[in-house]
Amino acid sequence: MESDKFEEYGGEMLRYVTSYLDNIRSRRAFPDVEPGFMRGLIPDKAPDDPDSWQDLVKDIERVIMPGVTHWQSPKFFAYFPTSSSYASMLGDMLCNAIGCIGFTWASCPSCTELEVLMMDWLGKMLQLPDAFLFSGPGHGGGVIQGTASEATLMCLLSARTLFYKREREKRAELTMGQLVDSLVAYCSDQAHSSVERAGLIGAVNMRKLETDAKGSLRGDTLKKAILEDKAKGLIPFFLCATSGTTTSCAFDNLKELGPVCEEHGVWMHIDAAYAGSAFICPEFRPLLDGVEHAMSFNFNPHKWLKAMFDCSTLWVQNTDHLRYAFDVDPLYLKHENQGVMPDFRHWQIPLGRRFRSLKLWFVLRLMGVKNLQQSIRKDVRLAHEFETMVKSDPRFEISADVIMGLVCFRLKGPNEISERLLRDVNTGGQIHLVPSKMKDNYFLRLAICAPDTNSDDVKYAWDVIKKAADVIMKSPIA
Amino acid sequence: MESDKFEEYGGEMLRYVTSYLDNIRSRRAFPDVEPGFMRGLIPDKAPDDPDSWQDLVKDIERVIMPGVTHWQSPKFFAYFPTSSSYASMLGDMLCNAIGCIGFTWASCPSCTELEVLMMDWLGKMLQLPDAFLFSGPGHGGGVIQGTASEATLMCLLSARTLFYKREREKRAELTMGQLVDSLVAYCSDQAHSSVERAGLIGAVNMRKLETDAKGSLRGDTLKKAILEDKAKGLIPFFLCATSGTTTSCAFDNLKELGPVCEEHGVWMHIDAAYAGSAFICPEFRPLLDGVEHAMSFNFNPHKWLKAMFDCSTLWVQNTDHLRYAFDVDPLYLKHENQGVMPDFRHWQIPLGRRFRSLKLWFVLRLMGVKNLQQSIRKDVRLAHEFETMVKSDPRFEISADVIMGLVCFRLKGPNEISERLLRDVNTGGQIHLVPSKMKDNYFLRLAICAPDTNSDDVKYAWDVIKKAADVIMKSPIA
Repeated sequence: MESDKFEEYGGEMLRYVTSYLDNIRSRRAFPDVEPGFMRGLIPDKAPDDPDSWQDLVKDIERVIMPGVTHWQSPKFFAYFPTSSSYASMLGDMLCNAIGCIGFTWASCPSCTELEVLMMDWLGKMLQLPDAFLFSGPGHGGGVIQGTASEATLMCLLSARTLFYKREREKRAELTMGQLVDSLVAYCSDQAHSSVERAGLIGAVNMRKLETDAKGSLRGDTLKKAILEDKAKGLIPFFLCATSGTTTSCAFDNLKELGPVCEEHGVWMHIDAAYAGSAFICPEFRPLLDGVEHAMSFNFNPHKWLKAMFDCSTLWVQNTDHLRYAFDVDPLYLKHENQGVMPDFRHWQIPLGRRFRSLKLWFVLRLMGVKNLQQSIRKDVRLAHEFETMVKSDPRFEISADVIMGLVCFRLKGPNEISERLLRDVNTGGQIHLVPSKMKDNYFLRLAICAPDTNSDDVKYAWDVIKKAADVIMKSPIA
Repeated sequence: MESDKFEEYGGEMLRYVTSYLDNIRSRRAFPDVEPGFMRGLIPDKAPDDPDSWQDLVKDIERVIMPGVTHWQSPKFFAYFPTSSSYASMLGDMLCNAIGCIGFTWASCPSCTELEVLMMDWLGKMLQLPDAFLFSGPGHGGGVIQGTASEATLMCLLSARTLFYKREREKRAELTMGQLVDSLVAYCSDQAHSSVERAGLIGAVNMRKLETDAKGSLRGDTLKKAILEDKAKGLIPFFLCATSGTTTSCAFDNLKELGPVCEEHGVWMHIDAAYAGSAFICPEFRPLLDGVEHAMSFNFNPHKWLKAMFDCSTLWVQNTDHLRYAFDVDPLYLKHENQGVMPDFRHWQIPLGRRFRSLKLWFVLRLMGVKNLQQSIRKDVRLAHEFETMVKSDPRFEISADVIMGLVCFRLKGPNEISERLLRDVNTGGQIHLVPSKMKDNYFLRLAICAPDTNSDDVKYAWDVIKKAADVIMKSPIA
């Protein structure tokens, strides 16, 4: 494709994008297709000769759109938001044009250096302690990971290596197998599935600890577990605390957990994948108090801060722990300036990495901190509007404190009627939600997701849910 | 940002992109900046109020471009190529507009279904055995991973789980630590650094085996190692064979290795990150013979097949091995159609995933198989042109067979003069190369990288190198 054609087709694509997003409310939030729907809609092999641009464009509506779950629709309230913004898209266009792989400083100095600066910008927006910043007094710094799963895993593995080195100083003959059989990591019974998975990948025991009535892990619970495990001769080494659980947006008590971790030499990692974005607002920042005790902190700007997936930001107080987690250093990746600026390949699971800081730079500059704060506040306000509607209907109950942009609610009574409510609502396809469960209590989760969601959309959602409840209440299940 | 502004700014960005790529030869391939160059060029915190688009655009040339290593420049010959194409960029624009996260079928059916179909399209282009295809007779299929590092790791971990289940059937009390201390994985001494890293992450012993004079791992070497390890009571479980090493583009002997793995129940994974794209050309396909013995096969369309990073395609003969590697299944990710189409979240390390099959679809349709084959052949031809030039100069020698688009060469004599040659060439910044080493023999690697590299660019590179050699030969190092 020549440049003039790219400009022409690209212009068409820009207009398709704006038209798609401007008119997204007219589409079902959740598609009405069966598994396997696409087979048969396209040939079973690639064309030998090029297809025309026009044919491809036609197929976007014919083949792709019928099966899209519209995450950017104001009628989509499932999971958590995944950010979308025009600013981020523009940054990604530039990223693709440069088309570099930023695994070392030398492989593209700007890719590394902008990331260093953006991690400090963002860290300051969150009022992270200076110890986490490149510009701070210690060995702190941050890096963009693909996902919170990878951030958790990278920290767990870094902690595993740290403990391997420490324990080998005491017992030189210690094997990795003996170590992993002795290590214990902790998380709450509300932690994200990726935390359990990090334990499985790291081959270490991940012990799930009971939370209090609000889904929060408390210091005493952790302390008891650590003492129990130490008494058994085990080595507590890692805690993944959650600030804003996926289930109900509960917050572990960092101010209690932090000192317990410090006392027992346990690496405290904080997973604030969703809620972390809100800490740019001073009124929500107290939820992060205690972060000074953490070795590492992670949240996803790609969830709630307008930078598109993938952009998961991780800070550590001692970057050496990431750097030396796996010290593999082939000649073809060495360069003359090693050690001055980070070589981010050491800080993550994969080797390759895109120029993702560009989209952060575009978002932060084109939106500014105040607009980003307003956007968070809007979503929280909408959640409270929905909460008020739910509370106004005596058939319903709220299942967890509404703190951020998530409302957990259910029909009073046995789980089955709420399960049916969810099924009916999703089958209708007008709005889309997913469920969760706490202590055997099943509920629906309504998360404010799309950038354009407004009060009318939330009222619309409530109407859909209320009508579905009306039908269920008229003909309860056998 | 409103839609009309996005169309306006997006149009400007499209023109910036084409202008950047059309004029990229006028820029230094390798930047002339010192570590830390960017600090001071931008403020030390994010703006409270939005910056203007115009100011941001100006800063692309002022702040970013001076520190860019131009991977898409025809004067860039370092590492391996990272694909760039307008077709892929257009597909990514659509991906960002849809802005979905495709972790389950239900989270965006089209995202999963197009990926299933594209993996079959691509598998057929490579003439993979039917056993690897979704449309094949068995349990085969493929998935897009972020990088080859992750594909290798995912397969190694899946094999670890498989062996854990098997060994626990024999010894129910076996712990994971005891298992990992017994497991042995293999790769050649030429394997990519990410393979060694996968062993470290998986906490298993990764034994590097000696290759033959051409850098190829042979069947007898593997067999001997397996028998040795079995005699020690260890459990050989995984081989990462390489088709096209990073060091010199050597090919492990799959036809020898495969039967050895089958005989001893070892999972053979093939890492063809770079060279795999060439297997769409019938004349190169014989290099993949033996793949029928592999449990898994991976290559990176984002390296040499016009789909931009990240797009690393992995096929397995039994998708259950990935699916059940880590069976973590929270309620908020369940859906009613589980088990019919894949839920790709189980097939990879991270949970989240972009709609990456769109860029593959755009590339395959807008370019067609024949053009993609021609593009591979052009790069291989250019490599041979360069090889001929090197061979014409008696001061130089070729260090490895030229099979794909990579030429390994050196100045005859001690390593030091080739090391100086590389340093001088890279400092000049006109072209960019990286070195490697085989059996203590240091050499320079010239990889044909950019989509537009032509014969003149290769001649230009040779002139730069020859002139640098002239200077060195006049004043040899002490």
